[in-house]
Formats: sequence, C-alpha cells, structure tokens
Amino acid sequence: MPGRPATSAADPRDLPGIFARLRPQLDALDRFLRAQVGRFEPEISGMAAYCLDTSGKRLRPTLVFISGWQGDGVVNDDLVRTAGVIEMVHLATLVHDDIMDRAEIRRNRRTAAREYGPDAAVLLGDALFSQALHIASQFPTTEVCRLVSESTRKVCSGEIMQTMRRHATDITLAEYERMIDLKTAELFRVSCLLGTRLAGHAPDFVAAAADYGRHLGIAYQIYDDLVDFLGEERRIGKTLGTDLAGGKLTLPLMLLLEKLPPAERGALVAALRDGVPLAHTASAGRMRELGIATGVVAAIDREIAAATAALAPYGTLAPVPLMRQLCDVLQAQVGALQQPA
Amino acid sequence: MPGRPATSAADPRDLPGIFARLRPQLDALDRFLRAQVGRFEPEISGMAAYCLDTSGKRLRPTLVFISGWQGDGVVNDDLVRTAGVIEMVHLATLVHDDIMDRAEIRRNRRTAAREYGPDAAVLLGDALFSQALHIASQFPTTEVCRLVSESTRKVCSGEIMQTMRRHATDITLAEYERMIDLKTAELFRVSCLLGTRLAGHAPDFVAAAADYGRHLGIAYQIYDDLVDFLGEERRIGKTLGTDLAGGKLTLPLMLLLEKLPPAERGALVAALRDGVPLAHTASAGRMRELGIATGVVAAIDREIAAATAALAPYGTLAPVPLMRQLCDVLQAQVGALQQPA
Repeated sequence: MPGRPATSAADPRDLPGIFARLRPQLDALDRFLRAQVGRFEPEISGMAAYCLDTSGKRLRPTLVFISGWQGDGVVNDDLVRTAGVIEMVHLATLVHDDIMDRAEIRRNRRTAAREYGPDAAVLLGDALFSQALHIASQFPTTEVCRLVSESTRKVCSGEIMQTMRRHATDITLAEYERMIDLKTAELFRVSCLLGTRLAGHAPDFVAAAADYGRHLGIAYQIYDDLVDFLGEERRIGKTLGTDLAGGKLTLPLMLLLEKLPPAERGALVAALRDGVPLAHTASAGRMRELGIATGVVAAIDREIAAATAALAPYGTLAPVPLMRQLCDVLQAQVGALQQPA
Repeated sequence: MPGRPATSAADPRDLPGIFARLRPQLDALDRFLRAQVGRFEPEISGMAAYCLDTSGKRLRPTLVFISGWQGDGVVNDDLVRTAGVIEMVHLATLVHDDIMDRAEIRRNRRTAAREYGPDAAVLLGDALFSQALHIASQFPTTEVCRLVSESTRKVCSGEIMQTMRRHATDITLAEYERMIDLKTAELFRVSCLLGTRLAGHAPDFVAAAADYGRHLGIAYQIYDDLVDFLGEERRIGKTLGTDLAGGKLTLPLMLLLEKLPPAERGALVAALRDGVPLAHTASAGRMRELGIATGVVAAIDREIAAATAALAPYGTLAPVPLMRQLCDVLQAQVGALQQPA
C-alpha cells in the first residue's frame, strides 16, 4: 500500500476508542523497535533507524495485540516481539516497494530509496528482513520463525505476480483476489494467528482468528484500492490515482472497464497499458455515475461479513469485541469515502 | 562476488581430488534445491527455479560438508538442509547484487534482473531469502534460523557499507577488512560453525572451525579482488576490471594507489571517482612492476595461515584433512594467478 497518506486508512491512532485501549501495547512496540536499532551493525544503524520510524499506521501490530487481547493495560512481551517482527517485515516490503514505485515521499518524509539511493535501499530492506527473522528466532520454538518466513514469501509472491502483470488489461477477478490475498491478507492472517496462539487460545479459535484476519486483509486492500481513486480526489483533486499511473489493474478499475461504453473503455485500456494519465475527477465521477463504488463497497462488505462470521461462535472470548470493533472502524471509513466531496 | 566467470575461483568441481569425495553430498544438495522449487507459489516457481540453477560454485555448501565431514559417502540430511539454506541466502544476495551492478550475464546466462526486470528481481531475491529462513525454521531448534538470519544481516551490512562508499578513494585498510569480513567471510564462518555443530563436535572445535571459515573467507575475497585484475586480463585482455569500473576500492587498488607516482595516482583516483576506464593491461602490468600482486598475495597467505593455525590442535578429527586441503586448493589457485600470461 505504498504512497498513501496516513489519513487514508483505518489508523488506530485517529480512533480514540480503540487507540486509547491499545496505547500501552503500541507504546511498548515503539520502544521495542527503537531498541532494535542498536542490534544492527553500527555502520548501518542510522539507516535502520530511519526505516523504523514510528509514524506508521501499525495495522498489523494492532491485529496482533487485539487478537491476543488479555485485558486493558496487559502488555505481553511475546505479543510485543511478534508485533515487532511482523511490522519490521512490513517496513522492509515498503522500503522495496518504494524502489519499484520510484516513490520519493512516504509519510511526509523521503523514502529510503530517495535518501540513500535505490541500491542501498535494496540491501537495507534485506537487512530489515534478516533482522525481523532473527528476532523471530529468539522465541523458544521455531513456530514464529516458520510462520513469518512463510508469510513473507507469500507476500513477495503476491507482489511478484502484480509486478509481472503491470500494464495488463486482462486480469481476472480470481487473479486479483489471489494477488491481494498473498500480498496483503497473508500478513493480516498471520498477525491474528500468532496473536491468538501466543495468548494461549485453543486451536479452533486460532483458526477462526486467522480466517478473520485474512478476510479483513482482503477487505482492507480493496478499500485501499478504492481510496486510490475516491480518497485522493476529495483531498487534492489531482490526476487519476497511483494505481492507474503504475499500470495496476485493481477492482475499481476492473469494474469500471466492464461498465464503460466502448470508446471510453479504449481510453482507459490505453491509459493502463501505456501509463497515459486520465483526468481523475472525470473518472471518479464516472465511477459514481456507473455505480462502481457501490460494487466495490459490496465486495468490501462481503469480506467484512466473512470476517465477522468467523468470530460468531467465540463472542465470549476477550479479543472478540475488539476484533469486531476493528471491522466497524473499517466499515465507517468505507462509508465516509462514499460521501461525495 | 558478482560477475565472475566460474573458472576464476576455487571451484570444487574443477578439482577432482576434493570433488570426487564431495560428489554424493553436492548431488544431494542439488536434489534438495530442485525439490525446493515446488515449495514456492506456483505462479513464481519457474522464476525460483531459474535462480536455483545448479551451475554455481557451491563454495559455502562445500564448507558445510567438509567441516561436518563424517566419512566418504555419508550424506547427513541436516548438513544438506543447512547447505541448502546457506546457498539459497547466497543466491538471493547474487540476485540483488546483479540488480545493483546492472549485470546482464552471470554464469553464461541472463541474470534474473535481465530476465524478469529489476523490480521483479528485487522481490524474487526477497522470496528466496524468506524461503531460506523458512527451511531453516524446520529444524527442531531455532539455532540454524538464529545464526543464518544474523549472518544474512551482516552480509547485507557489509554490502551496504560497500555501496555507500562506492567511488570513495579514501577507504582505509581497516574499513576494507571490515567490509569483506561482513559481506563474504561471515557466511563462510557460519557454514563451518553449523557444519561442525550439526555433526556433533565439541564447542572448542566448533569455534576453531568458525575461525577457520572466517579467515578462509577473507582470503577468498582478497583473492577474488585480485582475480578482477589479473584473472580477466589473461583470459580476454579487456578493459580494467569490474571493481574499478564500479568504483570499488579493493586491496589491489589500495596498494597500487600507495605505490604509484603522483601523476599516475591522479589518473587512478579520477577513474575510481568518475568511473573513467583505464587500460587494463597497463594497470595489470604496473601492478606486477610495482610488486602489488606480491603484496596482495602476502595478505592472502596470512589469512590462509591463520585459517590453518586454527585447526592445528584438531588434526585427528575427521573434517580437518579436508579443511586443510581446501586451503591448499586456494593457495594453488593464487599461485597460478601470479604466473604472467
């Protein structure tokens, strides 16, 4: 999800309800990540510190903490370490994403690629990956290492698929779902799986939480793809979103392509294939006229419903109210996005 | 060690003595790596297979096998898996190195960056790293994962240092030693450490083997840096080596800079700083006239002597004769390099 402004997504820090309750855990995570800086070789620790900055949304750590929820103010070191591992993997993928997207700015500061050059950024992402797995290997068993390394491979596979299919105009819905399942939902899934596991829950709830995380991750990525059109427009009214510019065929674009009359469809296909810019407002307007946003939101709603359904038998467990609340937060953000500017 | 022809280095397959004895282990490694292809997501397994090709020198696996040597024909599955992990980490670093060096050819075929584009190659290297650590996490304990992830971070740190100091003309000997210790000697060290550990050796021999591996790795990297000048020249007589072209100040260049008269030194400094080509034969000739090769070889000899010394108290242990033989192989290759073409 490169290049998004922090306000475009469900940031727990913008949401006093959940955030107030997660503050002790997220503060512990920030301390943990800051302490990790000293574990890198002195020659590169300044660069590592730059990448481990604390301004991110911390969505995956939030999932670890709420799925392993043990009560207000309870800070479980295993959960903090796992959240740190998963966040560091995520930050490593962002460092590499920014090289590929030629992104210069993320979260109001220069990307690592811009700050240190793309070559150093490739290696810096590698160093972050390695250190994340090194922290994972400090648990008594190999479980965290095994699960996180596998999820990392899947995230990379999803991103490779997306990269190899850039500028393609014939991506199927099944292919899109597979890509976002791997590149985004997988880390959401493993965050919930490990959160519940490390909090000592029974295997059936662990599996349900993993399922919840996966569906929430798919919903989040579809939402994020929609923000790329409707979110930006409301804020700045600039040219059509970064996905179209990067030749990425996402669900909003797929639905738009289906419904556009042939002449307009041709222009959009050319824009996707050749990276030709299209007027954003026009396309966002067309999206509303043709009911595309409604179709995209219906897909998000289905995933949120599946996430919620996975939790249904476990309403009495401590994490479940917070897990449901996070679904509500995402749903509220999706609703806000649908209001015309 | 990007971009070197296979014949430029101590390839055990070129050396019937050691290779004949290691064949069962290296064949098992090839089978293991081929089987790993199926563990990647189907959408990327073809790309993974491309990177896991079997034409490499397999130096690090050779170190795992000889330091864990248990007799001719004895194939220890733990050693095969560890060799596979370390080789896969090494192959991932090569995939990323080739992006940075804009290398198009490695081992007589296109690099992954050339074949799939640099963006996919970044992600493919990441997927290889992840899968390597995933295999490491399949041991009963976290030890392999912990040691390999830490070594990988160190390799990346060494490469970051080198990247940030490209085109610098004021690198000290201490800095050069630190860089090659991290980027090359670290994986040699951990190969020997894990080989002896998994073969059940006592901690004192494990530590000695690690020390041996580290010194051998430093010796190998200095040798490889010398090959960049003297090796290429004898084969093709093309322009000065890739290190100078890439702005990498290696030991041969450092010693040359020290001994050149001021006018020639200025030309070399400019070549390093600006990537201006210099006639290779002239510089290689100057290296011989000024006794540079002799100075570089003395540094290699010191490291080989230190590697051998580390083994001195353990002459009766099964791995030691092979470990010493590998030192002899490197020394013979260094000797061959010194002969004028």
